[in-house]
Amino acid sequence: MSVSASNVNWNTAGEAMCPYRLVLEHLTSRWGVLVLIELREGSKRFSELRRAIGRVSEKMLTQTLQILERDGFVHRDAKPIIPPRVDYSLTELGREAAEQVAGLAKWTEHRIQNVIHAREQYDKARAEKASS
Amino acid sequence: MSVSASNVNWNTAGEAMCPYRLVLEHLTSRWGVLVLIELREGSKRFSELRRAIGRVSEKMLTQTLQILERDGFVHRDAKPIIPPRVDYSLTELGREAAEQVAGLAKWTEHRIQNVIHAREQYDKARAEKASS
Repeated sequence: MSVSASNVNWNTAGEAMCPYRLVLEHLTSRWGVLVLIELREGSKRFSELRRAIGRVSEKMLTQTLQILERDGFVHRDAKPIIPPRVDYSLTELGREAAEQVAGLAKWTEHRIQNVIHAREQYDKARAEKASS
Repeated sequence: MSVSASNVNWNTAGEAMCPYRLVLEHLTSRWGVLVLIELREGSKRFSELRRAIGRVSEKMLTQTLQILERDGFVHRDAKPIIPPRVDYSLTELGREAAEQVAGLAKWTEHRIQNVIHAREQYDKARAEKASS
């Protein structure tokens, strides 16, 4: 299968026009990445997820979970008890997606020193150019 | 190596505080993904890249390339000729990053029908709930 930017349909007005691009954006969204990575460890309640992820607002986490649920990556289990209890877990499809995303995250973590070094070189070269 | 959202430092104010998160965001940015995928095929001039990617403005593509160059993923080769000619290619580090990103993109393309199906089910269930 060839993945090329040039054969992606760029009409992002409607999701029917470019579902591929939209799914990729969900998977790589700031909170989407972290929700998928957290849920790899097992099912979590909303409050647990929020605590684990950190600085995410209730609204943003709710939206992120809804998008991932609608895409078929996350299963939402609302138990009819009092007080209400809602658990989130990965579906089979979500588990596959999370593996891909975690692969990219792991690579990034692994190579972070190379990136920091590259930035220092770049900034140094720029500074030298500016002062010459 | 454990990749967990909870051990990511969330101070995004300065990149020194969370370089990992920032690099992941560069790699998964809308245009970043597409630049990396396009450059896997080989070095390209600015105008070639822009044509291949489609609806990206000159400004956004310039910014994206600068960020990827600074991170050490893209090499910029400005030839001192007239008219000026600038070629962009992946560095060794960039090639590794591009493989990861392309893996996620391929998986998304492969599974897109499952996602579309999940969305239809989700929307149907919502509509039924709303009308009952």
